[in-house]
Formats: sequence, structure tokens, C-alpha cells
Amino acid sequence: MAGHPTRERILQASLQLFNEHGLAAVSTHRIAAETGISAGNLHYHFSTKQKIVEWLLRRFEERIDTLDASAGGIGAIDDLWLALHLRFEAIQAWRFVYRDMGHLALEYPPLGQRIRDLNGRSLMAMQALCESLADASVIDATPEQAQTLALQIVFTTTCWLGFEQMVPGPAQRPQGDTGLAAYYTLTLVSPYVSRESRAYLDYLRAKYLG
Amino acid sequence: MAGHPTRERILQASLQLFNEHGLAAVSTHRIAAETGISAGNLHYHFSTKQKIVEWLLRRFEERIDTLDASAGGIGAIDDLWLALHLRFEAIQAWRFVYRDMGHLALEYPPLGQRIRDLNGRSLMAMQALCESLADASVIDATPEQAQTLALQIVFTTTCWLGFEQMVPGPAQRPQGDTGLAAYYTLTLVSPYVSRESRAYLDYLRAKYLG
Repeated sequence: MAGHPTRERILQASLQLFNEHGLAAVSTHRIAAETGISAGNLHYHFSTKQKIVEWLLRRFEERIDTLDASAGGIGAIDDLWLALHLRFEAIQAWRFVYRDMGHLALEYPPLGQRIRDLNGRSLMAMQALCESLADASVIDATPEQAQTLALQIVFTTTCWLGFEQMVPGPAQRPQGDTGLAAYYTLTLVSPYVSRESRAYLDYLRAKYLG
Repeated sequence: MAGHPTRERILQASLQLFNEHGLAAVSTHRIAAETGISAGNLHYHFSTKQKIVEWLLRRFEERIDTLDASAGGIGAIDDLWLALHLRFEAIQAWRFVYRDMGHLALEYPPLGQRIRDLNGRSLMAMQALCESLADASVIDATPEQAQTLALQIVFTTTCWLGFEQMVPGPAQRPQGDTGLAAYYTLTLVSPYVSRESRAYLDYLRAKYLG
């Protein structure tokens, strides 16, 4: 995964530029300038911009797949909160992926398909998570409700940071607040939470909405 | 509102091009070609692309503000469903606005601010709506829950059509399904719905999830 140091510097610079200025606005010339190398040297490592995006996407997929793999073992509200927090941190670190999805899918259809597949896997993982929470009696939900809940969780994790930029208020920070994002996702689960597990939700409410 | 016929043709062609190809990808030259007029004639009606976007945004604002104005009088699930349906139809008709918000806010900061203000007003309207539903005993929710619910509704109406493109399955249509979108928004309200109002939700569930 580490690879050649120049290759790694190119990927780091690209990730930062894509996150800050948007995938559409950043050219390979700008990436070369930011990395401090010639356009020819960049081309030696990555023959197209799509190849750079593909490498970054591969790392994002690895991170999300790792998080998804542990979703089925979550059996308490504080574990859920931590899992959501880690997920939003990953989404924030690669935030161009979901934010610029429209442009990405249009320019690089195979990569758009990979993101759809990734979200499809997350949907399955979040269903396993909701079933695990129901099995542990943390939430009280029918299989149908657990399925709807899983969909709402994936919708929120993929789109929330974009939404924060669309409403007035303190949310208009250059970077989203991953803790607040995790808390808002938890509120989706809130109506189903059993009496015994409510204490942790109340603690988080006090912390974030205090 | 109707104005000069050429002006109107320019606005209609722009709306269609922005919706189909994205705000970033459409130049004023392309709009002139699509309208069948010269670049000079286009410039006579709209001196910049921003002016066109501003006019389209103004009409979208008018539509959403009208829908928001009636939100506080909604006291039944089927009225809520109709209101959500009409809202998604408007969002679909001007779908470039929310979908291309990132690019729009970057290129035209004053217009980005107007969209944030619009969503702020919708947030207030959806709070009034949730309180109205609670007053009519359609839902059973504390003021705190009604506030969270209003936020979730605005999040869903602004971001759902974008999300449909991010998951696998039949949702990958060129245009989103506004009925399905309205139904998914209703599922947010579902845990709070009182026994008496559940029949209509069950009817919609059978209709959309077959």
C-alpha cells in the first residue's frame, strides 16, 4: 500500500486538492505543481487523472469495508456511536468521494458503479447492525423497521456532510463536525431504543445539543 | 413572471440543460445554441450565466416558499403525503439546484447563501408542520422530537434524489421517483404515528414496497 514515495506524495496532494477544491476543478497540472514535480514525472506514475481517483477510491473502499465487517457485532449504543464516528471520520477524510459523486459518475462511469456497489455493501452491513442491536434488545424493531432504519443510516452517512453546507448556522465550517454527524444519525435509531439503553443517548444529547 | 418570449425560452432551455448535464458543464454558448439564438442576443437578455441561474433560483424559491406557507395547516397523513409529493416534484423540476449546490455555492456565493436561507425557512416550516401533526394527534412527539423530525425531513427532501443515484438498484433512473421519495420521507414520521393514523401509512407501504 505504501509504494513509491513520489507516488504516495502525488496521492496525498491529490486527496487534499480534491477535498478542498472539488474533483472537477483540479487538473493533473495542478497536482504536479502542488507535489513539486514535472507534468512528465506525474504522467510516469499516473497516466490519467482517473487512475489517481481510482487509487484514492480503492483506499476509501478498504476503510469502509473494514468498518462494515465489524458492524454485525455491535450490541450497545456506545459501540454504535463509536462505529458511526469512525465512519464519518473516513467519509470526511475522503470527502470528495460522496460530495462530488455526480461529477465522478459522469466522468468515470466504472468508478461511479464501484461507489454504488460500496454503498450496496454498506446497506447490507447496516441491516446486520440493526438486527444485531435488535438481538441484543438495544432496540425494539420489526425486520421491516430494521430494513428502513438501515437505509436511513446509509442515506445519512453518505449525504449528511453535504447537507451541512446547505443549511444556515454554525454547521458552515470548512470541515463538518463528525461527532455531531454521528449524533444526528443516532437520532434515527432513537425512537426504537429500549428504556435500558436510553441513558447513553441522553448523555450524547446533553453533550451535543446542551 | 412570463416576460419576453425569448427570455422565457432561454430560461426553459437553461433549466433543461442544467438539470441534464450539470451546472458546471453548461456554457452560455451552449444555451444560446440550444435556444437557437446568437451569443449576442443571449447576452442582451442575460449578461452573465449567474443572472440566468439567479432567475431560475428565484422561481424555485417562490415554489418552495408557497409549499412552506401551507405546511402549518397539515393535520393528516394523506395531506402530509401530498405535501411531500408536491415538494419532491418541485425539487425534481429544478433538480440542478440541490444536486449542484457545491459548485453553485463556490461559483456564486450570494446564490449559495440564498439556498441556505431557503432551507432555513423550510426548516421552520417543517417544524410548524410537525407541531401541527402533534396538535392534531396524528403523531405523538415531544417538542424536542418534533424538532429533530423537522431536520430529518428537510435533510431528506434536499438530499434524497442525489442519494438515489448513489445506491444500486432500480433507483438508477434518469429521473428519481417522487412518489417513492415521498414515501421514504414518511417513514421518518412512522415511529411517531398514532394508532389511528397508521392505516394510511400501511396503504402507502403496500403501494410502494409491494
